[in-house]
Amino acid sequence: MSSIIGKIELERAYSRIAPYISHTPLLFSTFLSERWQAEVYLKCEQFQNIGAFKIRGASNFFLQLSEEERKKGIVTHSSGNHAQAVAYMAYKLECIAYIVMPHNSNKLKIENTKKWGAELVFCEPNLEDRLRQSERIADEKGAHICSPFDHKWIIEGQATAAMEIIRENKDIELIITPLGGGGLLSGTAMAAHYFSPNTDVIGAEPVQAADGYRGFKSGVRELNPIANTVADGLRTAVGKQPFDIIQQAVKDIWLAEEKDIIPWMYRIWQESKILIEASSAVPFAAMDGQSHELKGKKVAVIISGGNVDLTAFAKP
Amino acid sequence: MSSIIGKIELERAYSRIAPYISHTPLLFSTFLSERWQAEVYLKCEQFQNIGAFKIRGASNFFLQLSEEERKKGIVTHSSGNHAQAVAYMAYKLECIAYIVMPHNSNKLKIENTKKWGAELVFCEPNLEDRLRQSERIADEKGAHICSPFDHKWIIEGQATAAMEIIRENKDIELIITPLGGGGLLSGTAMAAHYFSPNTDVIGAEPVQAADGYRGFKSGVRELNPIANTVADGLRTAVGKQPFDIIQQAVKDIWLAEEKDIIPWMYRIWQESKILIEASSAVPFAAMDGQSHELKGKKVAVIISGGNVDLTAFAKP
Repeated sequence: MSSIIGKIELERAYSRIAPYISHTPLLFSTFLSERWQAEVYLKCEQFQNIGAFKIRGASNFFLQLSEEERKKGIVTHSSGNHAQAVAYMAYKLECIAYIVMPHNSNKLKIENTKKWGAELVFCEPNLEDRLRQSERIADEKGAHICSPFDHKWIIEGQATAAMEIIRENKDIELIITPLGGGGLLSGTAMAAHYFSPNTDVIGAEPVQAADGYRGFKSGVRELNPIANTVADGLRTAVGKQPFDIIQQAVKDIWLAEEKDIIPWMYRIWQESKILIEASSAVPFAAMDGQSHELKGKKVAVIISGGNVDLTAFAKP
Repeated sequence: MSSIIGKIELERAYSRIAPYISHTPLLFSTFLSERWQAEVYLKCEQFQNIGAFKIRGASNFFLQLSEEERKKGIVTHSSGNHAQAVAYMAYKLECIAYIVMPHNSNKLKIENTKKWGAELVFCEPNLEDRLRQSERIADEKGAHICSPFDHKWIIEGQATAAMEIIRENKDIELIITPLGGGGLLSGTAMAAHYFSPNTDVIGAEPVQAADGYRGFKSGVRELNPIANTVADGLRTAVGKQPFDIIQQAVKDIWLAEEKDIIPWMYRIWQESKILIEASSAVPFAAMDGQSHELKGKKVAVIISGGNVDLTAFAKP
């Protein structure tokens, strides 16, 4: 396949980010293995620093910049796990992170970002104003914009989760990841392509934000006119660079019905004793309709994160 | 120390039960380590088969009986994790488990026990009727009563969690476990005594069921006149055999205020991304008041289980 990312670049990315990430455990799931008559492992990125895989890509981005470049600051316009990852890396590397966030973002997201000393810039809750504010800061401060997924360095970083899976369990036949902007899925596909060519990679997407599925079938990148899904990490459309890789290196995209996502989130909490966020439940909801494809196989699912707002539950 | 349990018996117990238990991970906790300026590890028994450490003791009990003895059945009068462990082992070894349970037990507990094909015997919700029904079945069927904690074989089995901690991380200075009937705490103390004599062992108990604490201080085993704590696994009084060991081999018992238990349960969910039950939050609630004792130390906390009833949350 023709690709913007080489094998050696993935290996370098892994060495580069190693001091900033956790090697997360790959846990066997008795419950899922029995349910689907397969051997199912969970790559627990909810245990990753900041509670999500996003630190892998963000750290690779930061570490590719020179110290002088980093000093001018890093801008991002995510409000979720990527924002936390950027804020965390800025804290670790002693530079400034500017996080552009809709003024109506929830309190937990705001607090999580502030925790690492990032500078919050509030914008109107629409994509145009987000981009406008980000570019304004980049111009004014000479800061670098760190895209959540549509950048080579981000994709290389996200690939390292699958590299760990493959190193630890060489005969995994199938790796499944959630699909939002496509950084994790495209990175995983590149990792399998170079380090385990017999491993198939599959993306899982909510029906309500199925631009990736439609684009994969039509061959043309699509958008989500409305992305009304509880899986808030997957509302975004697939980026250009991830899309090119997904088209070439991903085997299929499976869909999750909206009504199945939250029940699957709670089922994983209950049965597997791990806390996963709604976006991370999408693969399970999608897989349950494809159990004939799983039967007898060694399967790894990447749990993308565990940043759930429990304040509603946590009444002392 | 004088003890009913020898080193060789612990080693044999570990080999005996190995095929029936999971070697659970010992995870480093960044959140707790930073909070207490210590190096804190979590022994994740919520990932254990049936979601709690109880399978360790139950499997050791079952496997000490001859096949002929097992054929007559095993009785227990627990309604919680020990009941599930007994039901699970009976299923695995193809014998009958009789579980005596108060008729007002919650639905999840009843379902969890039924899942493994155990025979439920309902009783009045008081200790006298529980014991009466258990002894009736033992008499009628020739079945063995499997105490949840007050038996040498159970204590040996529970000791294996700490044996795994010590093997994996030889320089742990402190191991903390919840204290209910005392099987886990006394087993842990025996494991440290034989395999890591420089490791101190501490129990954590709710103020509302502090018979263990009072007995440890007075030197005489006590009861809980009222055990009104949300930590339902710890309401029971310490058994005779565990008490003897705890007095000799445990360094101290720390107390958790009732008001801190549920907030700590949710805090661990939120920060550590694992699902733990209320009883497993008791060590953290107790430790938070003893941070001067933790500072600079390598500490392991045994998470006893993760069997939380999420049906109240899980609205599709």
